[in-house]
Amino acid sequence: MKIVVDAMGGDHAPHEIIHGAVQAARVAGGEFTIILVGIESKIREELKKHIRVENLKIEIVHAPDVIGMDDEPIMALRKKRDSSIRVGIHLIKEKKADAFVSAGSTGAVMAGSLLALGKIEGVARPAIGALIPTESGGTLIIDVGANIDSKPHHLLQFGMMGTIYIRDIFGRKNPKVGLLSIGEENTKGNEVVVDTHELMKTQLNNFYGNIEGRDILRGIVDVVVCDGFVGNIVLKLVESVMGVLTGSLRRHVMKNPFALVASYFMKPSFVKMKKDFDYEEYGGVPLLGINGISIISHGRSSAKAIKNSIFVAAKMCERRVNDHIREKLVLVKPTSNYAEPMSAKA
Amino acid sequence: MKIVVDAMGGDHAPHEIIHGAVQAARVAGGEFTIILVGIESKIREELKKHIRVENLKIEIVHAPDVIGMDDEPIMALRKKRDSSIRVGIHLIKEKKADAFVSAGSTGAVMAGSLLALGKIEGVARPAIGALIPTESGGTLIIDVGANIDSKPHHLLQFGMMGTIYIRDIFGRKNPKVGLLSIGEENTKGNEVVVDTHELMKTQLNNFYGNIEGRDILRGIVDVVVCDGFVGNIVLKLVESVMGVLTGSLRRHVMKNPFALVASYFMKPSFVKMKKDFDYEEYGGVPLLGINGISIISHGRSSAKAIKNSIFVAAKMCERRVNDHIREKLVLVKPTSNYAEPMSAKA
Repeated sequence: MKIVVDAMGGDHAPHEIIHGAVQAARVAGGEFTIILVGIESKIREELKKHIRVENLKIEIVHAPDVIGMDDEPIMALRKKRDSSIRVGIHLIKEKKADAFVSAGSTGAVMAGSLLALGKIEGVARPAIGALIPTESGGTLIIDVGANIDSKPHHLLQFGMMGTIYIRDIFGRKNPKVGLLSIGEENTKGNEVVVDTHELMKTQLNNFYGNIEGRDILRGIVDVVVCDGFVGNIVLKLVESVMGVLTGSLRRHVMKNPFALVASYFMKPSFVKMKKDFDYEEYGGVPLLGINGISIISHGRSSAKAIKNSIFVAAKMCERRVNDHIREKLVLVKPTSNYAEPMSAKA
Repeated sequence: MKIVVDAMGGDHAPHEIIHGAVQAARVAGGEFTIILVGIESKIREELKKHIRVENLKIEIVHAPDVIGMDDEPIMALRKKRDSSIRVGIHLIKEKKADAFVSAGSTGAVMAGSLLALGKIEGVARPAIGALIPTESGGTLIIDVGANIDSKPHHLLQFGMMGTIYIRDIFGRKNPKVGLLSIGEENTKGNEVVVDTHELMKTQLNNFYGNIEGRDILRGIVDVVVCDGFVGNIVLKLVESVMGVLTGSLRRHVMKNPFALVASYFMKPSFVKMKKDFDYEEYGGVPLLGINGISIISHGRSSAKAIKNSIFVAAKMCERRVNDHIREKLVLVKPTSNYAEPMSAKA
């Protein structure tokens, strides 16, 4: 198995990316090869900072161009044909590698993957699924930004793909799918959500029903389905929560000497709580429905996040997530007033 | 000034409601009268639990019917003509009182207020504004559930009403309005959001631009504008955060004796942090755009929340929020491809 890592993508590239790749290679112990793609001289320079890398299964593919976070994705992919993102994805397309991991421009990775690899047969629209930390070990929220006007049959497929992902990667036997809405009743929500509820009720045998905003972090379902506009806002809000709350606590503790001393003894508990809700623990988020494995890491990814993303990529490959999506999802004729063909389980 | 309080609405009614009303009456020191509306015998029974209530400015209006949380709002308002919600709102309509506060069915309060009091002239759609606790003392998020398919001109008006509310009630001189989206650029978001951005840029001189999910709790703007579907999910998610995080911390602390002892000394800091993010501190949420004052308290409202809601109602009245909305908002001819007339500042 070969996993391509975009050495140039992310706020802390290439330093943290290569650090994470080296860590992953050490832990993997030869189970897979990591191909670092990017500006070769910079990659070599970073690799020099680590000891005993010559024994690790790490290869380098030179890609002189870099797509920045501010570049318009489609335009950048077209103009920067030798960018790490485009070159990396093409290694997958040409079957020279099995999975791609990038902390670079989400838009460019998404568009590049879709253009080069295409969709899995039967999938109407690919979606990004992100793992949100919860009391019960994490909930996949899908979609978090690939689609901004999803129709019921898209949302149904998001639920199906999410189910397969959570089952394959996290080993949960009977994952439940919740539809994010503003009330539990099937009549609550906007038109798309109400119609999706109806569709899921008949087509998704692991459908839990509607869930509300307050249920997301409680982890009462394994997969939360929503349109990418809502999902993106929810994801970014959740990511910000820990920093905002601990910031407030820190300010109050600093003013109270007893609390300040006490906080030292509580540190292990804080660290554990933080770990419970640390998105870096889960690594990158998969682009589901693409005919290939493409993992998007957070732009601010540290070495740890990159390492975990690489292992997510390896698991997606090993456990044949895409094959299972291919087996389960088929396009069928539309039965509703929405334009594109509707999907159902095989 | 007279403030009507729905004694029968909410999960902890009538006990907590009347407790909160008594507290408010004591603090107010005769500044306003509280009219408790509901089943008279039950109200009198609850009042007996408090000392020296005979000196407080509290009146009772009997209303034998109760609208439950599960009742269909419109149907319930029609059938239960003597419900505390309907009777209470009609006291406002008949100018026998100045404001209405209820922790009962949001749908029934909303529908009842709209039916009996109507909209302020110039307002296309009323909206619910909820104060979300932030580092900078709170941000108003509007709408949180009154509308589920808001058009650009509705969202523009939400921003205007929110500005007036934050300025009048919180005394902020130059409140900033942010449009909730999935990227800072004006091209990011769904069609309605992109069009709203354009409209706000020209019509709202305190428009900050788009904000993202991660910016909500940071309080970088005073007013966050979004459709009620998104706003409702965000509000409920934020309300759940504190419980989920402290629950996780508690579990880790219980396993560590040092941390358990230390947590005792940190308690004051925890209490202050919790207060920073406690929605009960802010009282109820206003239904803005209604031709009258109607405050919706959380269904789980404690006495404290009810007390604070009553003071929010009193402030809305004193500071003439609705007059300012009437002065600022006018309906003008539509200039876009959306059906209803567009709004602009006078």
